[in-house]
Amino acid sequence: MAITLYDLAGADPNRRFSPYCWRIKLALAHKQLDFETIPWRYADKDKIAFANWDRVPVLVDNGRPVVDSWAIAAYLENTYPARPALFSGSPEASRFFNVWADTVLNPAIARFVVLDILNHLTPTDQPYFRRTREERLGQRLEDVVKDRDQRLATFAQTLEPVRQTVAAQPFLGGASPLYADYIVFGSLMWARCISPLRLLPSDDALEGWSERMLDVGDGLGRRALRYW
Amino acid sequence: MAITLYDLAGADPNRRFSPYCWRIKLALAHKQLDFETIPWRYADKDKIAFANWDRVPVLVDNGRPVVDSWAIAAYLENTYPARPALFSGSPEASRFFNVWADTVLNPAIARFVVLDILNHLTPTDQPYFRRTREERLGQRLEDVVKDRDQRLATFAQTLEPVRQTVAAQPFLGGASPLYADYIVFGSLMWARCISPLRLLPSDDALEGWSERMLDVGDGLGRRALRYW
Repeated sequence: MAITLYDLAGADPNRRFSPYCWRIKLALAHKQLDFETIPWRYADKDKIAFANWDRVPVLVDNGRPVVDSWAIAAYLENTYPARPALFSGSPEASRFFNVWADTVLNPAIARFVVLDILNHLTPTDQPYFRRTREERLGQRLEDVVKDRDQRLATFAQTLEPVRQTVAAQPFLGGASPLYADYIVFGSLMWARCISPLRLLPSDDALEGWSERMLDVGDGLGRRALRYW
Repeated sequence: MAITLYDLAGADPNRRFSPYCWRIKLALAHKQLDFETIPWRYADKDKIAFANWDRVPVLVDNGRPVVDSWAIAAYLENTYPARPALFSGSPEASRFFNVWADTVLNPAIARFVVLDILNHLTPTDQPYFRRTREERLGQRLEDVVKDRDQRLATFAQTLEPVRQTVAAQPFLGGASPLYADYIVFGSLMWARCISPLRLLPSDDALEGWSERMLDVGDGLGRRALRYW
């Protein structure tokens, strides 16, 4: 197998939830590239030290390591230009999607799912995860999620720019999905794979797009171990 | 002159503040197309009735009317493909910027500048503007802006995805500005042309990008009648 992806996993090796890894798995499927994933835990930093990096996704393409999801996506586009394009024109013109997901969408989702993540990790990963996330969030994880049900309406509103875009066209990318779609849907797959709490009602106007996204790569997301 | 743009104006015909018209003025400059603008007031609906539309921008290209800023941008891209591209690839892949500005950025800016807009309009436009905006916002315009100073920090945070994108590259479009930049900067020109309230501190990390945007089209924005 020429392409390998180190992919964040819970105690159950089939529990794959990292939004950044989902972006790349969907991108690899889009490029019609065969790949194999290696389940990776936070304690496995030594296993990716060869890449001079300490978090996933780490892609290894014929022995060459590539790190950071945005850099990996650009690498795939530049290395496999003859395969379906991940970007409309240059990757840079889509960087805003990456930043929007990282600064607006993911922090909002984290405040719903962070305790669910903890509960799915290996016993070894749990203390590390609790300590680093409680430092980052300045609260006990139990307190972060305490009022999460009251935040659902605000969260739905956060997705309004996505909702209105895919009301006007099938995908953020236009008639077919592009990396922008994988960025945003990767964040939703994070929640769907780790938490039983549905972040969006089943009659949300995003549902049509979500179903189309679950179909990408012959149902890559649909086949995943997930709650919704 | 082959291209004419109906452009929202205040009592002073040089006061041009519509964010949607700014998008198109910057797009026309980007395409290096000569154009003339016609100052238009809310009371002038009869003057654009020929286009079967009731708001600006309305573009007339050799007698052909084109309405709605997004449709006008796509029209310019498709009609003048040999001139500098406004989009990286297909316009659809940038639609999210348009929706984000319309649903997140502009509603936030409106709550700072709506009373300033009123105060710059012709006496004929003022009652119409007050009535329609107070209906939309559910408040007297004086009450909408009452706490605006307290909202500045939140507003700065709203622009964080733009700030981080142009920290990584010169423009939202990449190495050079694209229509995505004109969408977002058009919203800021709305505020800069109509309100003395600086929405961003002069040491904001967006300042470098803002200065580059003021330079677009030989300083089209820089030369405008504006407060900041």
